[in-house]
Amino acid sequence: MGAATDTGAIDALIDLMARLPGLGPRSARRAVLHLVKHRGRQLAPLAEAMRTVADTARECLNCGNIGTADLCPICQNNARANGQICVVGDVADLWAMERSGVFKGRYHVLGGTLSALDDIGPEELRIPKLLDRVVSEHVSEVVLALNATVDGQTTAFYIAEQLGEGVEVTSLAQGVPIGGELDYLDDGTITAALKARRKF
Amino acid sequence: MGAATDTGAIDALIDLMARLPGLGPRSARRAVLHLVKHRGRQLAPLAEAMRTVADTARECLNCGNIGTADLCPICQNNARANGQICVVGDVADLWAMERSGVFKGRYHVLGGTLSALDDIGPEELRIPKLLDRVVSEHVSEVVLALNATVDGQTTAFYIAEQLGEGVEVTSLAQGVPIGGELDYLDDGTITAALKARRKF
Repeated sequence: MGAATDTGAIDALIDLMARLPGLGPRSARRAVLHLVKHRGRQLAPLAEAMRTVADTARECLNCGNIGTADLCPICQNNARANGQICVVGDVADLWAMERSGVFKGRYHVLGGTLSALDDIGPEELRIPKLLDRVVSEHVSEVVLALNATVDGQTTAFYIAEQLGEGVEVTSLAQGVPIGGELDYLDDGTITAALKARRKF
Repeated sequence: MGAATDTGAIDALIDLMARLPGLGPRSARRAVLHLVKHRGRQLAPLAEAMRTVADTARECLNCGNIGTADLCPICQNNARANGQICVVGDVADLWAMERSGVFKGRYHVLGGTLSALDDIGPEELRIPKLLDRVVSEHVSEVVLALNATVDGQTTAFYIAEQLGEGVEVTSLAQGVPIGGELDYLDDGTITAALKARRKF
């Protein structure tokens, strides 16, 4: 793949870059060439940043978020212990929620969704830990922010069942996305939006 | 952009990754999340490979190719001193030529194309060095493999003029790409392919 360059170190870097999601051999070559051309300004700092993250990044022992300490900044922040926990499938979903800035509670990252096909059960998904936290952190509301897919919704139902009656369980509303054009929406979204219609 | 993570080191890495060509904030977050999840297997080796390239990569003093010594592997290889030099605009073009494996001579990387607009003249493009090499390396043929754009062809004409009569100057054929469908080709390519038609 990178053999065209005849130089081991650069080929090795291209091969590693090509394994990143969203990059292929062609875009990896392009990125590496860019980095080599800007090696003082960009490549050296990037190598350093990667080294730092490789040495320090770890999963939060409480919620599964990624941080640089045993507890992530959100779990360390007592202001966010407001009795709400938002359950997300992945750290990327947590980041997306945080960008919106609207949720003020804490999170619980499952690290996937239940899947019979991939043999992923409740133990793999930190669900027992979630049940512990609901008690130990005096949680009054669990917001299920899982993907609107079959696996995501199956997982949501399972968690709601496990949580039982002692805590309020809510989920994100489904409907037309902001800026969405009806013509481009799938039937399922339109059906969900119509069923959940409200007074204008 | 990365502020959603609340963790300085990871945010810094996302910001640096987002500056790579072909990556934006979203794909940089996705790549970094993937790297953090696979930090032992992928992130640490990638940091190491970048450090190595940052420390060793340099431009070949002879042809402008990228390597890890004063002379690139192609310029060090006497078997490639066959009297042919292929002139390319960029190292990426050299890599593309090498992947085809069909050219057995050496290269000369201009590092761009002549451009009045961007104030890029012959001195910026290693053209004087090319003229030196034609004499010192006893070159019999210069193959112009420049982009089929206005700037690329302007540069080709300028170089051909500078080289004069003492050396054969050729250029890549223009026509229908292998696997290309006429319906999807631009008029310029079809015109060039028709003008250069040959006996079947």
